[in-house]
Amino acid sequence: MTITITAFERSPDGGKGLARDMRVRWALEEVGQPYDARLLSFKAMKEPAHLALHPFGQIPTYEEGDLALFESGAIVFHIAERHAGLLPDDANARTRAIAWMFAALNTVEPPIFDRDLAKVLERDEPWYEQRLRVLEDSIRKRLGDLSSRLGDADWLDGAFSAGDLLMVTVLRRLQGSGMLEEYPNLSAYVARCEARPAYKRAFDAQLAVLTAASTG
Amino acid sequence: MTITITAFERSPDGGKGLARDMRVRWALEEVGQPYDARLLSFKAMKEPAHLALHPFGQIPTYEEGDLALFESGAIVFHIAERHAGLLPDDANARTRAIAWMFAALNTVEPPIFDRDLAKVLERDEPWYEQRLRVLEDSIRKRLGDLSSRLGDADWLDGAFSAGDLLMVTVLRRLQGSGMLEEYPNLSAYVARCEARPAYKRAFDAQLAVLTAASTG
Repeated sequence: MTITITAFERSPDGGKGLARDMRVRWALEEVGQPYDARLLSFKAMKEPAHLALHPFGQIPTYEEGDLALFESGAIVFHIAERHAGLLPDDANARTRAIAWMFAALNTVEPPIFDRDLAKVLERDEPWYEQRLRVLEDSIRKRLGDLSSRLGDADWLDGAFSAGDLLMVTVLRRLQGSGMLEEYPNLSAYVARCEARPAYKRAFDAQLAVLTAASTG
Repeated sequence: MTITITAFERSPDGGKGLARDMRVRWALEEVGQPYDARLLSFKAMKEPAHLALHPFGQIPTYEEGDLALFESGAIVFHIAERHAGLLPDDANARTRAIAWMFAALNTVEPPIFDRDLAKVLERDEPWYEQRLRVLEDSIRKRLGDLSSRLGDADWLDGAFSAGDLLMVTVLRRLQGSGMLEEYPNLSAYVARCEARPAYKRAFDAQLAVLTAASTG
């Protein structure tokens, strides 16, 4: 059954692979499932046809036969549940890997995403510098805890899992901030993920969209 | 096998049931599983014994035999996977209910949680009113989309599910703001959940902790 995902026609990150379709592309590459990407303009994302697929008018979505799905975490989980390679077989280890998926999106991502948002929306406000410091303190608190838990391990809990995949897509938003480098084991963890062949294929696929758009 | 969760010894919300243990208590009540609650001081939450259970030093955690779990979304999912009542049997409907779990925590919760945080941390800042307006605009965008999708339905997708449970715990944080009342179908949706016997039992259980603490 053909899998079709949606992605930005022109990603605001300029090809750094920070848009949320990257999570889904990477997960599909890890489990060896081919897919098509349907590209959307910002205008099309708010039109009824897309809102029927995604109630909040965002990307990515996922279509496979009569299943239509939204929310990147849920799509990655669906892929991980259907195909081997992203969740351990042992029941308790599987449950813990799922806990890391939720931790990435609900505990670690919010202050990191807020920082990106503030950098765009609040840059000219009088409170910008102070707000950035508050956000960076929250981020460091999360990174410190995450770094302590990871320690010398390669992955968050046993083998590489969908929990690592989501966590790394969150941490990558900090690249260029200098914050990740304060935690050498986290920098190495992100680099370890980026070196995976599936990651590279997904990264190249999202970059190819931008290259095609700019030469088209 | 005994289930033990952790919760605040003294919840900062004064018994409104907004702390994240409420999600887990409610899920356990929906599926009819008894549990013990171990209460933690803010100091104990940051000590090694608790950090071994929860890398970010928060509540709730979940212990059952040799499984130790953190992150409220993951705990609710674990309960929903093991016991009937919180996820549909049909594979596609189940996947969509899981999408709503992620949507509640990763798309709807962040601006709502930020508003609560700003009300505590930024109340005395000169930019407070302006920042609150920005956050409330983001929240209204999400509520508008959610209200459109819910329409006249009782629940987000077919029968009541763990997706509704998490969404309502997120929306309840807006009570008292007046924002929920701008979307009558969302107010009615929250009230419909609060009327569930399992919700009431969970609410009473978290309130009893505070009552005991204040008379103790």
